[in-house]
Amino acid sequence: MNLAIQNAIATKGQTDPNPLVGSVIVNDNRIVGIGAHLKAGEPHAEINALRMAGDKAEGGTIYVTLEPCSHHGRTGPCAEAIVRAGLKKVVVATLDPNPLVAGRGVKILQDAGIEVTIGVCEEQSIKMNEVFNKYIVKNIPFVVMKSASTLDGKIATHSSDSKWITSAEARNDVHQLRNEIGAILVGVNTVLKDNPELTTRIPNGRNPVRVILDSTLKIPLESKVVSDQQAETWIFTSQKHSEQKRIELENLGVKVFVTSDLNRVDLNEMLKILGEHSISSLLVEGGGEVNASFMNQNLVDKVIVYLAPKLIGGKNAPTFLEGTGIDKMGQAIELEEIELTKIGPDYKFIGYPKYTTS
Amino acid sequence: MNLAIQNAIATKGQTDPNPLVGSVIVNDNRIVGIGAHLKAGEPHAEINALRMAGDKAEGGTIYVTLEPCSHHGRTGPCAEAIVRAGLKKVVVATLDPNPLVAGRGVKILQDAGIEVTIGVCEEQSIKMNEVFNKYIVKNIPFVVMKSASTLDGKIATHSSDSKWITSAEARNDVHQLRNEIGAILVGVNTVLKDNPELTTRIPNGRNPVRVILDSTLKIPLESKVVSDQQAETWIFTSQKHSEQKRIELENLGVKVFVTSDLNRVDLNEMLKILGEHSISSLLVEGGGEVNASFMNQNLVDKVIVYLAPKLIGGKNAPTFLEGTGIDKMGQAIELEEIELTKIGPDYKFIGYPKYTTS
Repeated sequence: MNLAIQNAIATKGQTDPNPLVGSVIVNDNRIVGIGAHLKAGEPHAEINALRMAGDKAEGGTIYVTLEPCSHHGRTGPCAEAIVRAGLKKVVVATLDPNPLVAGRGVKILQDAGIEVTIGVCEEQSIKMNEVFNKYIVKNIPFVVMKSASTLDGKIATHSSDSKWITSAEARNDVHQLRNEIGAILVGVNTVLKDNPELTTRIPNGRNPVRVILDSTLKIPLESKVVSDQQAETWIFTSQKHSEQKRIELENLGVKVFVTSDLNRVDLNEMLKILGEHSISSLLVEGGGEVNASFMNQNLVDKVIVYLAPKLIGGKNAPTFLEGTGIDKMGQAIELEEIELTKIGPDYKFIGYPKYTTS
Repeated sequence: MNLAIQNAIATKGQTDPNPLVGSVIVNDNRIVGIGAHLKAGEPHAEINALRMAGDKAEGGTIYVTLEPCSHHGRTGPCAEAIVRAGLKKVVVATLDPNPLVAGRGVKILQDAGIEVTIGVCEEQSIKMNEVFNKYIVKNIPFVVMKSASTLDGKIATHSSDSKWITSAEARNDVHQLRNEIGAILVGVNTVLKDNPELTTRIPNGRNPVRVILDSTLKIPLESKVVSDQQAETWIFTSQKHSEQKRIELENLGVKVFVTSDLNRVDLNEMLKILGEHSISSLLVEGGGEVNASFMNQNLVDKVIVYLAPKLIGGKNAPTFLEGTGIDKMGQAIELEEIELTKIGPDYKFIGYPKYTTS
């Protein structure tokens, strides 16, 4: 199963909107087939492994990181292919959360008299598909809040200088994140202040859709995200936006979505729209106010902070989470499943918010 | 030498104002003597090792973590004892920064024809005596700035709730710190807000001297640090203090030191006074303003931050380093020799500020 997981992880970033899946077939203590799902529309992991195994699959055991599918999608149902190949045993890491499968694949196998074991390396298999697992069930993107901060919690000096908080190594890691994500979001104030490109600056990098929150459409027409044609730009605005500006932006190829709130962009509505447009993951790179508006509505699934071993100081220097904040320590949002790694001189801190109400 | 260092480290907290020193004597590939300096006024590490070795020291090699002393202090000069014992070789981790020694011990040995090697495990030996190394040369305390903060850099909520940022395990570690430090410092605003005891709450703990910065002597007479008699309390004030209040405080057994600045406590003068009163180490547990005043004057030698994997948020929630802060990222204070350890659910981050000007 570990080999199956390794094969699945190796395809990270190329299977979207499908999950990462790996598979290994063993017969008489020998590996006879190895497979992974490489790209949406192409064969599933089990099919690739079965093809490699050929006749040698019969009577063997297939290890697969995700429950074999039961539905006729773009490729045939894998559960039926496994039955046809005459396998004796199926070991599954985790059930498919996809409501179209969700146990039906296992049922097909069991009905055919195949022995099925579920839950081997389950945690790891669930985590590697955290984006898919949320999107397939809720149809809104998996939201990652990312920030770069000094040890004293600052994302810029009191005079707004932020070049650079973290090292080149950490900034390069952010470009890897962008390469794997469906869309990247900032508030219009970040556009006004930094005029960022929000593109993936690595060789053969894939650019995410650039999403800007701008309740009045005050974004300059000459800002890079509007004018540089490097990637798609979608602007979400509120009812109080300027119609004239909307037309100007659309003429430049920018998509403008108007949410129903009078004054602010309704974030729940925005996530729903992104989901409908096949965006399964969103990287929020906001300042402290944008981040707080996501966090206050329990919309953040994962937090990534690049922590630089530096001190900036300043009562008025911005932090990555502002707004009003909580009143009492008992309301603090705890982060779970912490991962801490060193990247160059900096530290990459990953955690998952545990919301007491959600 | 590793064994000598282990023996030295084992005496941490009990040798003050002397350094930690360990020593091992080897003859014919066998350990014949082991020693450490246990307490000021008692024999040095080399003497203890020589006593254990007795006749077997002759012709052998002594490993010692600090240069053997050359001066007649409370115990005799160790360099001469080594010569008398007939050792052939001396391996020293690091020279003694004490201006009374500083190479003179090595000279005595070399003049007697003994082979001396210097610099084995030097870095580790210097670090374990970081407090002594500064104090013996500058006669002002080694300053440790300690804070407990959430991942978003906050030390309390916007409404000043800070119970608790970190776990019981991390708070217990702070009491270990207090047990090893000469004095602990807070600003009067912390006293007004939290009314802390600033004592060491571990079994057989030693309480540091409690130092309060209070430029006008607005500290309440009924505050715990003034009235509880648990440990000494020294208040540093400025020229604009109330004479009446000073007398009242002194009548309660509190020491009041008046520094020469008209409006604020002069921190350099305060450190000098602490040094003159044999305080070799100071733990600054200030809020963001007190911490910033130390940091802005390059007075912090070591930074310890207990980082809780929690989020608080809030533009007005305090951080552990406030003041104005730097203007440009190029002026950020970098921390070096980072150590990161996990304590319960929290992270203990240790670093040494690298001042560009000092």
